[in-house]
Amino acid sequence: MTERRIVGTTILCRPGEMVPGEIAWSPETGRITHLGPARGPAGPDDLDGSGRLVLPGLVNAHTHAGMGLLRGVSDDLPLATWLRRVRESEVRMTAGDVRAGLRLALAEMLRTGTVGFVDMFAWTPDLLGDVLAAGLRVNAAPAVFGYDGVAFPAAWDVTGAEVLDGVPALAAAVGGEPRVTVSYGLHAPYTCPPEMIRDVARRRAVDGVGVHIHLSETRREVEESVRRHGVSPVRLVADLGLLAGRTHVAHAVHLLDGDLELLAGEQVTVAHNPVSNLKLGAGVAPVPALLAAGVRLGLGTDSVASNNTLDLFEELKTGSLVQRGVAEDAAVTGVDGFLALATAGGAAALDQGLTGALAVGAPADLVLLDVTGTTATPLGSASSFVGYAATGADVTDVVVAGRTVVADRRCLTVDEEAARAEVVDRAAHLRRRVSAG
Amino acid sequence: MTERRIVGTTILCRPGEMVPGEIAWSPETGRITHLGPARGPAGPDDLDGSGRLVLPGLVNAHTHAGMGLLRGVSDDLPLATWLRRVRESEVRMTAGDVRAGLRLALAEMLRTGTVGFVDMFAWTPDLLGDVLAAGLRVNAAPAVFGYDGVAFPAAWDVTGAEVLDGVPALAAAVGGEPRVTVSYGLHAPYTCPPEMIRDVARRRAVDGVGVHIHLSETRREVEESVRRHGVSPVRLVADLGLLAGRTHVAHAVHLLDGDLELLAGEQVTVAHNPVSNLKLGAGVAPVPALLAAGVRLGLGTDSVASNNTLDLFEELKTGSLVQRGVAEDAAVTGVDGFLALATAGGAAALDQGLTGALAVGAPADLVLLDVTGTTATPLGSASSFVGYAATGADVTDVVVAGRTVVADRRCLTVDEEAARAEVVDRAAHLRRRVSAG
Repeated sequence: MTERRIVGTTILCRPGEMVPGEIAWSPETGRITHLGPARGPAGPDDLDGSGRLVLPGLVNAHTHAGMGLLRGVSDDLPLATWLRRVRESEVRMTAGDVRAGLRLALAEMLRTGTVGFVDMFAWTPDLLGDVLAAGLRVNAAPAVFGYDGVAFPAAWDVTGAEVLDGVPALAAAVGGEPRVTVSYGLHAPYTCPPEMIRDVARRRAVDGVGVHIHLSETRREVEESVRRHGVSPVRLVADLGLLAGRTHVAHAVHLLDGDLELLAGEQVTVAHNPVSNLKLGAGVAPVPALLAAGVRLGLGTDSVASNNTLDLFEELKTGSLVQRGVAEDAAVTGVDGFLALATAGGAAALDQGLTGALAVGAPADLVLLDVTGTTATPLGSASSFVGYAATGADVTDVVVAGRTVVADRRCLTVDEEAARAEVVDRAAHLRRRVSAG
Repeated sequence: MTERRIVGTTILCRPGEMVPGEIAWSPETGRITHLGPARGPAGPDDLDGSGRLVLPGLVNAHTHAGMGLLRGVSDDLPLATWLRRVRESEVRMTAGDVRAGLRLALAEMLRTGTVGFVDMFAWTPDLLGDVLAAGLRVNAAPAVFGYDGVAFPAAWDVTGAEVLDGVPALAAAVGGEPRVTVSYGLHAPYTCPPEMIRDVARRRAVDGVGVHIHLSETRREVEESVRRHGVSPVRLVADLGLLAGRTHVAHAVHLLDGDLELLAGEQVTVAHNPVSNLKLGAGVAPVPALLAAGVRLGLGTDSVASNNTLDLFEELKTGSLVQRGVAEDAAVTGVDGFLALATAGGAAALDQGLTGALAVGAPADLVLLDVTGTTATPLGSASSFVGYAATGADVTDVVVAGRTVVADRRCLTVDEEAARAEVVDRAAHLRRRVSAG
């Protein structure tokens, strides 16, 4: 197969670096073969990139894609109540419910320019197969809520201990698939006991599998950790050996002295989830301090139950805006800095050896944005459009590892209409089961 | 002409009140004639409203639509520097530049579901005619920056005093047009001297024209007011007699003791501009306190130079989220409360006797939202979709005063492509003039 080319366009290779011209890749290797001045006009199989901006595919650093049925399920509730309500629905979900929710989420992510995601939920080889078929990248962590506490959904009748035991086999089942990473999914130190966290730290010292865990999301969580354990959640898991290996932390909103240094560890990545943190009233994470400390920070949407979309462009805008407002300083975070979270930061959290930048030899993970709409007019700065005006609705085409998965705003790999209809139907059934108690 | 009908739909009449069935209006009177159970299937001229949600047209309570050429002109700068940079461009704008920017803004507002706007910028009968032709409602305030300071654009060679003198004539020129209100536009107490504010208070006591003014946007503005005048900006203009008549206040972010009570005055409305306040590092307005004090609060985008879009759905989501995050309380503002700002609150600020709700006899100002996208699936609660997931891109049809101005996502009253091309061209020329100094 010949090269695929996009000509007559502008390429935002990485935040702050813009190249006019052409980008090309090999569908066989999935890697970029040219990036720079145009090498001639568009041929019949090439894409005319005029009126488009090419940028690296975005990576969602923290979500629960299988919760697609629970969008807006309990809005306007504080986190503790919200978590109880969400759990009432979660435990009643079937395997089919998870799969349908995942499929809708895959379509939504692709359509809004997300090429990979770091996820904690119920994960099986079948579900990983769905992600591969849709064309995305994933770092998937099957979640546990303690040894006996059920890993959701309850219908699967599996214990937390069994889920942990199954992680190496799950990793092996997709071994060699460069688009899939598997991690241990410890829900949080307030649901998983210290001995379980130490146990996982020991397992991963042997098998080298990464860990994904929620830490320091709310002020109350931190206060309770100090009361029960004498230290912050971050310090607690560090003391239990967890941060000595590859660990991905979601949230890190409320930090105590010393936490920043621990999170800046070489093996640690952190997902910042501004919309979810705001919506659940968790608070505003100290992004400037995290960045100043050298923490490798990605940007996540969290699930649609606390967002209510998977559109990373919204996360970019809201995330950078709220930092400026809270600091009362418009210069505290620049648009390029935040875009780096959604590209390089997310790529690090995926743990697949990617940089999140477009360059010759790198995987062709790219997004085309329409810059002919009113919100892109005039287009003074492409970064400014991406960070402060664009939404997922401006995405026209998406390529992952050299494969075109969205073309002309249509998702080619997921039947969006069928996915929608199935979710509508299953959500209604689920609501009835929850009401019946 | 016969009635226009939308059948088989769901109507969000006002925040929290949902009616399934049909809405109909008379194109002659522009008023709603039916709202409730369907009166039969859709005829050939009726709109099938399945897969759609009907809601009241949104009103933008504070913008500068004529600044369309300046989108993203100086991102990532604090307000004082930003204002200087923006003024460098503003004073070099021609009448044609303002008109082109306005036309693009009109298209963008309509396409994103905004049917009316409260504006402070350069206003002439021609520009008001453009708004009427596009089909929107406006409360237009020609802006002054002191008696001698030029009202922009400088090319018009008019003084602040002349602009003030011209306001009653401008109001008379469009007298009888129910979709147009005119106000005095005092930029701010730090640009307009106290004697000018007192002068306007005296003028309006005679002519009854309203006033639109920026107040208490930044902490520094308030501190300087206290240093120079001994009181807050709100107290200062109250002492000068301004709040004794119809006054619309933009911002009100930083308030001192007693300000809330003054802003809760019967003749006062306030525009909350969350995205602009965050972007310029102004801060986070005390929305729960403003609402608790009974202030009549609307929702504004401010100009595209500090936003960078005119999409009120983004403002809804960001505005309510940031309040929850800063308060660390998910219950501090509900989605319906914020939607009321963009409907009833904006309607009050328009000062055209409207309620912002859909009801028989009220003007047919309505918006159709597509609820068949992934972000509306499943549609647990329509309010939740509107407040936390919808964007302007979900708007399919817009009706103002009974006239269809957007159909199937196309603006019928403004040639969007021509408006875009003109802004691109004029913005390039303007940048060259600014660079030349």
